[in-house]
Amino acid sequence: MKKEKAAVVMQTDFTKDISVCTMQGVCMIVDPELKVFDSTHDIQSFDTYQASTSLSFVVDFWPAGTVFVSVVDPGVGTDRRASVAKLSNGSYVVTPDNGTLTHVKEYFGIDEIREIDESKHRLQKTEKCNIFHGRDIFAYCGAKLAAGIIDFEEVGEKYPVEEIVTHELIPYEVNGNRISGMIDTIDYHFGLICSNIPAEVFEEENIHYGDCVNVKIYNRKEEKVYYEEKVSFQPSFGSVEVGEPLLMVSETIQIQIAINCVNMAMEYGIKAGSDWIIEIKK
Amino acid sequence: MKKEKAAVVMQTDFTKDISVCTMQGVCMIVDPELKVFDSTHDIQSFDTYQASTSLSFVVDFWPAGTVFVSVVDPGVGTDRRASVAKLSNGSYVVTPDNGTLTHVKEYFGIDEIREIDESKHRLQKTEKCNIFHGRDIFAYCGAKLAAGIIDFEEVGEKYPVEEIVTHELIPYEVNGNRISGMIDTIDYHFGLICSNIPAEVFEEENIHYGDCVNVKIYNRKEEKVYYEEKVSFQPSFGSVEVGEPLLMVSETIQIQIAINCVNMAMEYGIKAGSDWIIEIKK
Amino acid sequence: MKKEKAAVVMQTDFTKDISVCTMQGVCMIVDPELKVFDSTHDIQSFDTYQASTSLSFVVDFWPAGTVFVSVVDPGVGTDRRASVAKLSNGSYVVTPDNGTLTHVKEYFGIDEIREIDESKHRLQKTEKCNIFHGRDIFAYCGAKLAAGIIDFEEVGEKYPVEEIVTHELIPYEVNGNRISGMIDTIDYHFGLICSNIPAEVFEEENIHYGDCVNVKIYNRKEEKVYYEEKVSFQPSFGSVEVGEPLLMVSETIQIQIAINCVNMAMEYGIKAGSDWIIEIKK
Repeated sequence: MKKEKAAVVMQTDFTKDISVCTMQGVCMIVDPELKVFDSTHDIQSFDTYQASTSLSFVVDFWPAGTVFVSVVDPGVGTDRRASVAKLSNGSYVVTPDNGTLTHVKEYFGIDEIREIDESKHRLQKTEKCNIFHGRDIFAYCGAKLAAGIIDFEEVGEKYPVEEIVTHELIPYEVNGNRISGMIDTIDYHFGLICSNIPAEVFEEENIHYGDCVNVKIYNRKEEKVYYEEKVSFQPSFGSVEVGEPLLMVSETIQIQIAINCVNMAMEYGIKAGSDWIIEIKK
Repeated sequence: MKKEKAAVVMQTDFTKDISVCTMQGVCMIVDPELKVFDSTHDIQSFDTYQASTSLSFVVDFWPAGTVFVSVVDPGVGTDRRASVAKLSNGSYVVTPDNGTLTHVKEYFGIDEIREIDESKHRLQKTEKCNIFHGRDIFAYCGAKLAAGIIDFEEVGEKYPVEEIVTHELIPYEVNGNRISGMIDTIDYHFGLICSNIPAEVFEEENIHYGDCVNVKIYNRKEEKVYYEEKVSFQPSFGSVEVGEPLLMVSETIQIQIAINCVNMAMEYGIKAGSDWIIEIKK
Repeated sequence: MKKEKAAVVMQTDFTKDISVCTMQGVCMIVDPELKVFDSTHDIQSFDTYQASTSLSFVVDFWPAGTVFVSVVDPGVGTDRRASVAKLSNGSYVVTPDNGTLTHVKEYFGIDEIREIDESKHRLQKTEKCNIFHGRDIFAYCGAKLAAGIIDFEEVGEKYPVEEIVTHELIPYEVNGNRISGMIDTIDYHFGLICSNIPAEVFEEENIHYGDCVNVKIYNRKEEKVYYEEKVSFQPSFGSVEVGEPLLMVSETIQIQIAINCVNMAMEYGIKAGSDWIIEIKK
C-alpha cells in the first residue's frame, strides 16, 4: 500500500517572496510529489519568540507526521544548532535551535531532538553560501524527511532535550480570587491578546459567561500598568457592542482579551512575552 | 475510475497567516489528498460586501464542483447562519450567511442553500471555542464536502434561497443617451473602478474603441460628485498616456474606469457599494 | 510509466489576491492534477527589471521542466509579444517579452523563444477582455504546456533569441586593486544589496573572511555617491555586531552588502539597475 507522504509546512520572517519560492522549489527537486504549504511568512524579523508561538498555534491542527520547517534565524552562519525535533504528537519541526521550540516543548512535548549533519544534508553546490540555511539545509533536510528518503534517526546526532534553547515562560497561577498569567501571544492583525491561562481555570473558579471581572495588564520589567478595567466574559465578539472589551476562550482554548472590532494590542501598546503579566480578579 | 477530488479555495479577512494555516491543516486531517488554494486573505476586516465581490470574481474560473470557503465573519458566535450554497455553475460556497453571497446569487445563481448542522460538522475538541468557526466549522465541513465524505444533502437542513442575507444592489439602466450603474468593485491595489454595466451595453449603444464619453461618479447618500471628466473608451491601458483616464472592458466583462499607472480609487476617494453611482453620457 | 507533470510557478505585480486566484483556477480547469505555486506577487507595479531579477533568483532551484509564468505587464493590450522562452536548464518562462527575460538570458541562457499564438491559446469566452492576459493567455498557455497538452513547438512561431527585449546590464570588472559591478538586486524586505560580482572574484583576488575593503556605491546618472565605508568580508550576519555593515556571499553566490539587522537599502536610498555601481578597493 502506498503511504501518503507527509506535508511540509513552512514559516519564516521573509515575507512571502522569492526566498520562500526557492525553498519550495528545493522540496520539489527532492520529491515532486511532496505537498508544501505556507503557514505565515510575516513573523517579525528575527523574532524567535513569535516564531515559537506561531508554531505552537498550528502544530496540533495538522496530521501526525507533518514536517514543519521554521526559519527565523538571526544566528544563521554562527554555531547555533540546526535541528530537527520530534514532537510527542508525532510531527517534526526543522529549525534553528534558538528559542523557536519554546512553546511546542512546553505545550506539546518534544520526545527527541537531533542536530542536522550538514555534511550529509546540505543542498549540493551551495557550500559557499552561509546566509540561507532556510533553503540549503532546513528545506532540503525537511523535504527528505517528509518524502521518506531519510528517517528521523538519519538526520544527525541526538542531543539532550534539556539543552534546547528556550525563552522564559511564566506559569499561570491561581491565588485566592486572583488568577494571573503571562501574555503568551498577540494576534497583530486583529489585536487579540491571549494569555497562557487555560480556559478550564475559569470553569474551576466558577467564572461563567456574563460574569464581570477586574482585568489588569502590566509590564513587570517597566513596573507599568497598561490596562485596567472591568471586563465581561463572553462566548464571542458579537456578544458585546463594537468598541467594548471582552474576555473569551481563544482558538487555543486559553483566556483571551480583545475589544470588538478594535485592535486592542495596538491601542494599548501591549506585547507578548514573559515581561507582560495579566491579572484577573473576581 | 478514480474521481478527481474537488479543490478547496479559501478567502478570509485574516491576512495570510497562522489562522489560515490551521484551516488548511484541518483540510489535510480530513483528507491528505485534498488540494487547497488561497484566494485572497486581504479582504478588509469584517467587510462582507468585499467578500461578496471577491467571491463572484473567482467562482467562474474554477472547475465546476470546486468548494469555496469564505470566512469574513463579524457575527461569529451569534445566531447568523453557517451555510453551504450550491451555485448554478455546479460549485459550492461555504460561508456565514451575512451578505457574502450577494453577488454570486445575483450573477451566477444559487440553486439551493443549507444550514450547516454543527452537531455533525464541527471539528472535535473545539466545542469550547466560539470565535473560530473558520477552522472548526467552515474549513472542516468544506473539506468533507470536497473529499466526498459527505454529500451536499448531508450538510444540514435546506432553507429558502429567498432568505439569503444580501447587500443592496442597484441595477444598471439605459435611459436615452445616459447609461448608469453602481460601482460594483474596487481593485484596491491598482485602483481600478469597476461598474456593474455589462460590456455589451456599450456594443448595443454603439460606443466603440476611441469614442469619448462624459463620465460622472457620485455618492448618492452624500449627494457629492467625486469625478467628472470626458474619458475615452479603449482596449487597454497602453492605449493612453501614463496619467490619462480610460474606460475599458474589465476582467469580468463589465465597464471599468482607471487611470494608466495611477491608483484612481485612492486618488479620488472612490469606494464600492450601492451608494456609489457611475453615469456615462454620449 | 506515468510522467510527473511539471509544476507551474507564478510571479506577478498583483499582490496575492483574487486575480492570482483566477489564474490558478484556470490551471485547474486545464488539468486538475497540476501543481501550482506562488513565487512572489509583490513585484513593484510595472517593474519589469525587478520581474527579471526575481525570476533569475528562483529558476535554478526548481526541477528542470518547471513552467514559470511571469505577469508584470505594463504593455498589456499593446503589440508587445506574449512569449514562451525555453531556458538552457530545461525550464520554461511564459511572459510578456518586455525586459522580464533579461537576467535569465544573461545568467542561464535561452535556447529558443516562441510567440504565443493567441488564436489557439486564449481562454474561451475572454475575447472581449484585453487587460488580463495573465489569466486569459499566460496562465492558460502555461498550464497546457505543464500538463503536456501542448509541446513547446505548438506554442507558436519561433523568433530569434537576439530580438528578446532586455534591460541594460553593466558587466563587472577587475582593474588592478579595483573591482566594480552594478547593483543587480535589492531585497526590499531585509534591505540586502546584491552586486553582479561573482563570489569567485574575491577568491581570485585573495580577499578572505575577515579582510577589510573600501566600498563605494554611487549612481552614475546622478553622479552622486550614496555610500562609502570600510567594510569587512564575513561568512554571515552573526559575525558582526548589530548595526555593523558586512560584505558576504549572497544566496546567488555573488558579492552582497548589508547591515546586520538594519534595512541598508532603505537607510541609504539605494536601488537596483544599471545606474547603480558598486566599487570595491583592497
